[in-house]
Amino acid sequence: MYFSPEDRKSLVWGEKMNVELISVGTEFLIGKSINTNTFYLAERLASLGYQVNEQIVVGDEISQIQRVLKSSINRSDIVFVMGGLGAMKDDVTKKAVVEALGISLVENPVVKNQIKNRFKDKKSSEIPENIWRQALTPRGAVLLENKQDIIPGFIISALGKKIILLPGNPKQLKEMVDQKVMIYLKDWQPSIVCSEIVKIMAVTEQDVVEKLGSLMESENPKITTYSQIGEVHLRIIAKTNSKKEGKKLVTPILEEIKQCFGNLVYSTKEDETLESNVVSLLKKYNITVSTAESCTGGCLAGKLVNISGVSSVFGQGFITYSNKAKKKLIGVSKNTLKKHGAVSKQTAKEMAEGVSVTTGSDVGIGITGIAGPEGGTEEKPVGLVYIGCYVKEKAIAREYHFIGDRNDIRENSVMAALALLRTTILENYK
Amino acid sequence: MYFSPEDRKSLVWGEKMNVELISVGTEFLIGKSINTNTFYLAERLASLGYQVNEQIVVGDEISQIQRVLKSSINRSDIVFVMGGLGAMKDDVTKKAVVEALGISLVENPVVKNQIKNRFKDKKSSEIPENIWRQALTPRGAVLLENKQDIIPGFIISALGKKIILLPGNPKQLKEMVDQKVMIYLKDWQPSIVCSEIVKIMAVTEQDVVEKLGSLMESENPKITTYSQIGEVHLRIIAKTNSKKEGKKLVTPILEEIKQCFGNLVYSTKEDETLESNVVSLLKKYNITVSTAESCTGGCLAGKLVNISGVSSVFGQGFITYSNKAKKKLIGVSKNTLKKHGAVSKQTAKEMAEGVSVTTGSDVGIGITGIAGPEGGTEEKPVGLVYIGCYVKEKAIAREYHFIGDRNDIRENSVMAALALLRTTILENYK
Repeated sequence: MYFSPEDRKSLVWGEKMNVELISVGTEFLIGKSINTNTFYLAERLASLGYQVNEQIVVGDEISQIQRVLKSSINRSDIVFVMGGLGAMKDDVTKKAVVEALGISLVENPVVKNQIKNRFKDKKSSEIPENIWRQALTPRGAVLLENKQDIIPGFIISALGKKIILLPGNPKQLKEMVDQKVMIYLKDWQPSIVCSEIVKIMAVTEQDVVEKLGSLMESENPKITTYSQIGEVHLRIIAKTNSKKEGKKLVTPILEEIKQCFGNLVYSTKEDETLESNVVSLLKKYNITVSTAESCTGGCLAGKLVNISGVSSVFGQGFITYSNKAKKKLIGVSKNTLKKHGAVSKQTAKEMAEGVSVTTGSDVGIGITGIAGPEGGTEEKPVGLVYIGCYVKEKAIAREYHFIGDRNDIRENSVMAALALLRTTILENYK
Repeated sequence: MYFSPEDRKSLVWGEKMNVELISVGTEFLIGKSINTNTFYLAERLASLGYQVNEQIVVGDEISQIQRVLKSSINRSDIVFVMGGLGAMKDDVTKKAVVEALGISLVENPVVKNQIKNRFKDKKSSEIPENIWRQALTPRGAVLLENKQDIIPGFIISALGKKIILLPGNPKQLKEMVDQKVMIYLKDWQPSIVCSEIVKIMAVTEQDVVEKLGSLMESENPKITTYSQIGEVHLRIIAKTNSKKEGKKLVTPILEEIKQCFGNLVYSTKEDETLESNVVSLLKKYNITVSTAESCTGGCLAGKLVNISGVSSVFGQGFITYSNKAKKKLIGVSKNTLKKHGAVSKQTAKEMAEGVSVTTGSDVGIGITGIAGPEGGTEEKPVGLVYIGCYVKEKAIAREYHFIGDRNDIRENSVMAALALLRTTILENYK
């Protein structure tokens, strides 16, 4: 038992609701895996008004896990321990935690049955010992079922604190957090936390901060900006005594943001991305689209095709990286390329029109630009991108200047094209 | 001063060369940014035989930074502190560290000159105070110049340890580590560390571990696997007394791995990716390629186009998501689609041939598959993908079964297509 009577006295379930996140895994210490679990969980906790004090990564070693667990419990109310729950030899998290807390392991009939079902071709005696060990769960702990695997998670109440054990597999962790842990976290939070997300396309963090001005300094509700490629997400969080009161605090801010950014606000749904929003709009108005990409080389199409069920609105696209392809495949005129160059407003327009006419789609998008690092000139520098959009027999094109490396410029171009596509749909079909 | 005389006595530059990484930034604690710095640095340290004991993230608060710094210095020989070095109000890392170590700040003429050059349009008195503060550097520290910004990094020698301060911007950090810090790290390592990377395409971690068998258990040189999408990287690390001896240990292992995996070993260069390797090969043999993508929707082309200078070997591609596009754009026969279906070996072959003939390229690649979550049947389940390759008037196609979500299946398909393309080039042109 790692906590002395003095330790125990000072440990009480706090008012401040501080949280620490411990990731267990030598793979992180040697740079083998990137720690996405912490990133995901931290955002989920912030959305409920919890404050994460510290994030720690240690290797798969009992003494290390116990050392950091003890300090974390001393400092915080809720401690997450992620990873090392599996059946392998180096999965020692469960043992380390129960030993540190002085809790025994008991066989859990639910997990035992899951194991039997999973290995129903085998006799009980044929199932390896390390698999059976999964059925040993900390006495008194809440079991968090894992829908993708046998390995359960746990919520342990000890020393006036909550210790939450989660699997290290990111998909399993995400599902367990979303389906189970969030419910408990909402429940433990002494205030009612009202949280809304607002997603704004075609803006930078600086745009948002400048435009919203003093609104950004509001304490309750508090607004946090999450800068993404080509868009910004805002989270509005109010802490109150009732849901109704929370809504009353959040709604006017939400309305003010919507007013401020108009159609650039594309979603207030947690799960919706710009590409899924655009595909939904295309489906809603029954509009087909096709793409012609030069510097983005298929990445816009790739984003659209990542939305399941896109086939009714997007069926074909072209990568016209060379001038030959621009002329031959989508009919950009030789004259335009000669007079204005491949990276020009005119070419972008002709690409958009050409791809729409060639494929018979309602809308055509054309992207041409200089992604670098080579190919820039004083007149046409690296980062210059033109995006054309053709709809209802009219072609428009916009000029963009992106900064960063080749990949940054390409990713920004794709997001800008999605934003232009969304604007075009709303202007022409609503 | 945070270290007592007793503290100091126990602190000596160790033999074990343990390292800890402290990231400073409230943005990580609220899930606003993903911590890629730690991931990058951990791999670089592992490649030199250093052991990272712990990774910690704290907010932008002096007391927090000092608390974790003190524990880290007690446990380790080298402590990295990343982030919080800028000119903003919440950039407190430098202050926190020098205070904790009892070191004073002195004005550095090199940084002062950089500031003057950067703001040469302004008088000295017009440059804001917070910018001038960048010129204050810890007394006796080694200055690590930042080529992308004014903000320098530092190597501080104190208490028998090394404390290394690096900027939080990932691109600046990466450059500083690669160009400067690695040189010092090599120098401090008491053993000579010989390290080689081997990149193997079209294999899983399990394949590698099974095929290499007992070789994986070797202690010196040690082999670590880094599993990536569609490929595995192996790092061979030997610790010895001389470079020559290190090479003698590493070379036979490298040869054994090459023998074992033959042409699947595509690179032993740190910076080379599969796509850059394939583009180099295409250029070497002067081969042009074109692509026709269904389920990957342009992502293969997108990967190729991300290589600067690809235009001489890749000029055009098609996204043929619909059957109509497959027929109209690249001439897949109606009969094939009817008889075998869009997801079939035959269709993949005809896509590859069709795109090669249509564009006049030397090689054509066709990808068709079921990325899910919908569209799977018992006969053709989600994850079934066919990749066709047409070269020298001959079409071949391979069948793949990938697992995971829609995006996993698409990413794996792209990597498999690159692997097939590489194999085809080597078989037909070497």
